[in-house]
Amino acid sequence: MAAAAALGLGLGPLAVQAQTAEVAAGRAKAQACAVCHGPLGVSSAPDAPHLAGQPAIYLAAQLRAYRSGARRHEVMAVMARNLSDDDIQALAAWYASLRIEVQAPP
Amino acid sequence: MAAAAALGLGLGPLAVQAQTAEVAAGRAKAQACAVCHGPLGVSSAPDAPHLAGQPAIYLAAQLRAYRSGARRHEVMAVMARNLSDDDIQALAAWYASLRIEVQAPP
Repeated sequence: MAAAAALGLGLGPLAVQAQTAEVAAGRAKAQACAVCHGPLGVSSAPDAPHLAGQPAIYLAAQLRAYRSGARRHEVMAVMARNLSDDDIQALAAWYASLRIEVQAPP
Repeated sequence: MAAAAALGLGLGPLAVQAQTAEVAAGRAKAQACAVCHGPLGVSSAPDAPHLAGQPAIYLAAQLRAYRSGARRHEVMAVMARNLSDDDIQALAAWYASLRIEVQAPP
């Protein structure tokens, strides 16, 4: 899906490869996140948000905010402290690559 | 779905009615949120998170944090400023009542 989206934006094969690699790197890095946010970004903890399908720009901004302390959360402060900018981009790319569907209410 | 979940928890008919009314109140109140977060809590703005299916406890905590200023965001500060505790509970109940499905990646 990420590759298809990238093609839709007119990116060339090298850009698509780079994006796919970023998603794969993020997926590997996200194993630490899965404890609270679930293996596919659907959390089972009542105080942890689902991350699946969230916009990459939003996710990266939140991780930077946790890292800097601008957004505060005891656990997330520890989790984000040592993330590099590349780590953050990869994690955001991974969760953003997941497709979600919402069931319309009655 | 909310009613079914409540029944599953062993709540009686009055509690189910109250929960259903809260979801309906939240849905009405959420019209102001839909501009950024979408009519069913799936945002089309790159810096606004999807809210569909998020845990009610998480959503309520974030709205309280925006209202108090503990979590900062220019737009959300304005949106949350005049929310009552009941408004927050209703909005959280509405978004939490939406069911999401994640498509497993290849």
